[in-house]
Amino acid sequence: MASLPDTESLKSEAEPPPEMSIENASHHQAERAEWVLGSPDPPSLWHDLLVSIRETLLPNNSNDDTKRSPMAQKQALCRGAASLFQGLFPTLCWGKSYCVSKFKSDLMAGLTLASLCIPQSIGYANLAKLDPQYGLYTSVVPPLVYALMGSSREIAIGPVAVVSLLLSSMIQNVQDPLTEPGAYRRLVFTATFFAGTFQALFGLLRLGFLVDFLSHAAIVGFMAGAAIIIGLQQLKGLLGISHFTTKTDAVSVLESAFRSIHHQWYPLNFVLGCSFLIFLLIARFIGRRKKKLFWFPAIAPLVSVVLSTLIVFLTNADKHGVKVVKHIKGGLNPSSAHELQFGGPHVGQSAKIGLICAVVALAEAIAVGRSFASIKGYQIDGNKEMVAMGFMNIAGSLTSCYVATGSFSRTAVNFSAGCQTVVSNIVMAMAVLLSLLLFTKLLYYTPIAILASIILSALPGLIDVNEALRIWRVDKLDFLACIGAFLGVLFGTVEIGLLAAVAISFGKIIFLSIRPGTELLGRLPRTDIFGDIRQYPMAIETPGVFLIRINSGLMCFANANYIRERIMRSVTEEDDAKRTERRKIQVVVLDMSNVMNIDTSGITALEELHKKLVSIGLEVGIANIRWPVIHKLKLANFLDRIGRERVFLSVGEAVEYSCLSSKFTGLDSC
Amino acid sequence: MASLPDTESLKSEAEPPPEMSIENASHHQAERAEWVLGSPDPPSLWHDLLVSIRETLLPNNSNDDTKRSPMAQKQALCRGAASLFQGLFPTLCWGKSYCVSKFKSDLMAGLTLASLCIPQSIGYANLAKLDPQYGLYTSVVPPLVYALMGSSREIAIGPVAVVSLLLSSMIQNVQDPLTEPGAYRRLVFTATFFAGTFQALFGLLRLGFLVDFLSHAAIVGFMAGAAIIIGLQQLKGLLGISHFTTKTDAVSVLESAFRSIHHQWYPLNFVLGCSFLIFLLIARFIGRRKKKLFWFPAIAPLVSVVLSTLIVFLTNADKHGVKVVKHIKGGLNPSSAHELQFGGPHVGQSAKIGLICAVVALAEAIAVGRSFASIKGYQIDGNKEMVAMGFMNIAGSLTSCYVATGSFSRTAVNFSAGCQTVVSNIVMAMAVLLSLLLFTKLLYYTPIAILASIILSALPGLIDVNEALRIWRVDKLDFLACIGAFLGVLFGTVEIGLLAAVAISFGKIIFLSIRPGTELLGRLPRTDIFGDIRQYPMAIETPGVFLIRINSGLMCFANANYIRERIMRSVTEEDDAKRTERRKIQVVVLDMSNVMNIDTSGITALEELHKKLVSIGLEVGIANIRWPVIHKLKLANFLDRIGRERVFLSVGEAVEYSCLSSKFTGLDSC
Repeated sequence: MASLPDTESLKSEAEPPPEMSIENASHHQAERAEWVLGSPDPPSLWHDLLVSIRETLLPNNSNDDTKRSPMAQKQALCRGAASLFQGLFPTLCWGKSYCVSKFKSDLMAGLTLASLCIPQSIGYANLAKLDPQYGLYTSVVPPLVYALMGSSREIAIGPVAVVSLLLSSMIQNVQDPLTEPGAYRRLVFTATFFAGTFQALFGLLRLGFLVDFLSHAAIVGFMAGAAIIIGLQQLKGLLGISHFTTKTDAVSVLESAFRSIHHQWYPLNFVLGCSFLIFLLIARFIGRRKKKLFWFPAIAPLVSVVLSTLIVFLTNADKHGVKVVKHIKGGLNPSSAHELQFGGPHVGQSAKIGLICAVVALAEAIAVGRSFASIKGYQIDGNKEMVAMGFMNIAGSLTSCYVATGSFSRTAVNFSAGCQTVVSNIVMAMAVLLSLLLFTKLLYYTPIAILASIILSALPGLIDVNEALRIWRVDKLDFLACIGAFLGVLFGTVEIGLLAAVAISFGKIIFLSIRPGTELLGRLPRTDIFGDIRQYPMAIETPGVFLIRINSGLMCFANANYIRERIMRSVTEEDDAKRTERRKIQVVVLDMSNVMNIDTSGITALEELHKKLVSIGLEVGIANIRWPVIHKLKLANFLDRIGRERVFLSVGEAVEYSCLSSKFTGLDSC
Repeated sequence: MASLPDTESLKSEAEPPPEMSIENASHHQAERAEWVLGSPDPPSLWHDLLVSIRETLLPNNSNDDTKRSPMAQKQALCRGAASLFQGLFPTLCWGKSYCVSKFKSDLMAGLTLASLCIPQSIGYANLAKLDPQYGLYTSVVPPLVYALMGSSREIAIGPVAVVSLLLSSMIQNVQDPLTEPGAYRRLVFTATFFAGTFQALFGLLRLGFLVDFLSHAAIVGFMAGAAIIIGLQQLKGLLGISHFTTKTDAVSVLESAFRSIHHQWYPLNFVLGCSFLIFLLIARFIGRRKKKLFWFPAIAPLVSVVLSTLIVFLTNADKHGVKVVKHIKGGLNPSSAHELQFGGPHVGQSAKIGLICAVVALAEAIAVGRSFASIKGYQIDGNKEMVAMGFMNIAGSLTSCYVATGSFSRTAVNFSAGCQTVVSNIVMAMAVLLSLLLFTKLLYYTPIAILASIILSALPGLIDVNEALRIWRVDKLDFLACIGAFLGVLFGTVEIGLLAAVAISFGKIIFLSIRPGTELLGRLPRTDIFGDIRQYPMAIETPGVFLIRINSGLMCFANANYIRERIMRSVTEEDDAKRTERRKIQVVVLDMSNVMNIDTSGITALEELHKKLVSIGLEVGIANIRWPVIHKLKLANFLDRIGRERVFLSVGEAVEYSCLSSKFTGLDSC
């Protein structure tokens, strides 16, 4: 509890007594002006750059080492090294306290996860235009590697729909998966290797912020667009079409589907697929309604696979046009190290595809990991996650896996199933491995239409209409990035969607920088605070003194002329309006509190503005100049040119001074 | 003079008396919180967009029409229409008060200008790889059109070195000027037409800000690089080389020159060129030293041409390897309307080249016009200038001219010669026209080396080392754009230089946006002002209260996570440092005064930050939230989540409240 005397002394120190004389006031003013003008030089650009690099590479070190003793620095270094090692292998942390009860939970969660993972993996491999076993391989090695290095406890690692689509849509432009499956597969592994390398590099060089460039809004739009594209692609499996377009945009896919319907399709596929799709969606609905029945939607896909396979096997439906998976190669993940191509004509393409997949996979995994970590109340370090993801994909690329990441739907199942640690991923990997060794022969008669319906049933989770609506409500420009990504994916290609999202997002930053606003300030009643008169309608304008604030963090070549003209226009308009009321402006005070940086064009604009305002007979004061700005203004001799006595600590000081001083003459209404 | 009682009443209104009780204080606090939370909704994005478009198209209208009466709006509209017409033809303004004495000055200035313009025009036509007469044509029509429409009084219109180089370096990649001079010329006229159209469109659509994208620093670097390139290109004329590289970069040009020296060159050209270059440079030096002798460097080029032509004619030096201009087609500007090509394979290229030339020409003209207008103390409207330049180049493209703009060196001569109005341009155009009609035959024996030395002597004015040094001193990142443009032009191509400049400039904006700083605040002694404790070392930190300000105008996807982590790090570091001093942080106050916009990612980051800080046992207050930000935070329900009583009008309020209130408990040191 604060005691009364303390508060009193604080207040009396903060505020000069009202009976202060003019002399006293100008003495204080002089002292405060000295504070403004005599501020130490800010750190140089080189220093800033060094600090920034050090912060990026060694985030555990202090960014202000002058304050630290050498011993503290040493401690920080040791702590940094220890945390780096623990960061790389978080197993070391939770491994000590792992117990049987936790394992029980993880075992159950892992088995539930496996029952969902096996059919999904086969389906996603189909989406990636690879043989089914590659999806299963991808659910074995990456989860095991992640279990050693990852820090999220709930995330379920494996192939996901969007990355599968992304990979196949980009690689099939380079190699045709139908005519040259071997070359296509080699490209997939090479791209996976590059994706892993980029992810690990991002993490090691602490470039995690690069993933932020895909803004949340862009991801929402991109995911929704990709989900619709993936859904449309399932028309192929659902209708039993053999010849289908390789393009991914909605128009081409629908056109191709309609053309096929007129030519040759097998209604039995459709009937089978749709019945099980309805079953899956009902299971999903029930699982959403009753949280305790979470296992029902989780095992429904496996149940569908088993049932439909039995139906086809017993009725010989594959003779009547129902397409089946046929042979799946069983056994352990074979090595694919010899299939990586670091020469040849396509290595640049593979690297580019790897980079794009790396960013999208990371964006999805980090979004998934963060949201579940925040439910359980622990923190995930994005950079460490990236290292884990990177090594897991590098290991994957050597063992016949394609790009794996955290799956949203399976992570949710894992969470609901009560997983305690990442051990559930190990259990799942083991279960998938077992099925690879023993059960692949049983999947011969599994209809492809069922795989399509399993993929389709997982898609609604990717389309987040509520979030899109929230974005629309809160920020219209953000929504533009969202809808840009959505339409780009839907009607262009996946890459165009991503590009549109990034371009719109950065375009927004530039647009807001080159078209800043200005605002007129007024004193809030009974305070020394000056606020925007539109935000605070009760604010009182000081007669004769025109207070204007530049609403831009940066006054630079791209906006300096605009700001200058805007201020001139405000002043002349205000002057015109006030002329009739006989309260002509005599002093203009420029509040620079928001301008955190200025360049030579900005300084020139300020000089021109000052010259113009003086030429129409106004006094000009500048208040609240920030550290880097005042330093540059000093270097450019601007302060001497406008007069050092016209630089104020705050708007309040400037107003007071313009009322008190004889320098700003003729004010009769202060 | 301000009277004492007024000041007193102002002060007593502004500051609560020190004997105010806690109840009173919390009553005031509640009222102020209401101001913050109950602020009206800011204008929607659509409204902002409409205002911005209206401002762009009708700059004379008010940007805040709610304040205006309908009559005032009508008046503004009439005024706008009148000023638009007067703006298009400023001749209407000064024409009324034109008199004989002014004409005398203009006549003298115009004749001086013509004597400099004729040799320069021939030289620049050579640089543009056109026949000499096209340079002369360009000094006739565009100045006449500009005289009707332009608003600058000093600017001298005609061909300039940089634009000539730019045009030839880009068009020769499309058509070879030596083998297909006709096709090359047609492309030049088409590009000129496009340049004029773009310039006029920029002006009419008020897109003048596009020219600002070439920052001042970039222009300084670009001009210097271009000057060196132009100088090196003159080696061809100076050495009398026939086969010269068409590349513009320094390495290729020097290589080509050295190779030629080993093969075949004519020393007589060099001797002649160098002697007159020394004469021209001495003239320039004298003109700079004695302002009254300004006419000496101005007529020196014409004198050189006359003398050298006579020498060659009398000595038959052209038989001994001295290259001469030979035939110049005389007569009026022929029409070139039929030569414009709006079809064919190169129309896109021409438009692109036109756009680049338009921007560079405008940047140079506006820089020239502004600097001389500011000496004479009048204003130039960039948009109107652009319309004038645009129409002058469109007219030029129809009458065998290439892109003209304001020349820095000739404008300086015009100014020194005492021109009063743009009539000096008319006089110059007439003089050039006269020489086209009568004297072109006399230029047969003019040596090309003299044209090279005339161009060389004008180049030092384009290299502004002092300005580059000033930029280096004031802003290192600005200097990076400058040096980027310089090196890009010098070692790449002219386009690469321009691109580098624009890319570095915008890269700077993005870099500063994604890596913002934070600063710790302290109360300045005896005030209610809180400032950066590094800028104001005398500032006093409030024990137990951690005041941090986000130094970013925009809290968005690209920097929100960075800001969040930076704040968390500052808090934990500060906490570690203070723990030993037993003054543990209990309250964190976030000063958002600089954050003028936020997006959904920013809001998410704020939510996460709040959650984290609360989870480590800290109270969080937010102060000084700007208008658009508080609106979005309300929409996103953020304010309810953190508690509306934790939102403050200012940092001072937050500190006071954290001392007074029992909500923020346990503070024993306020």
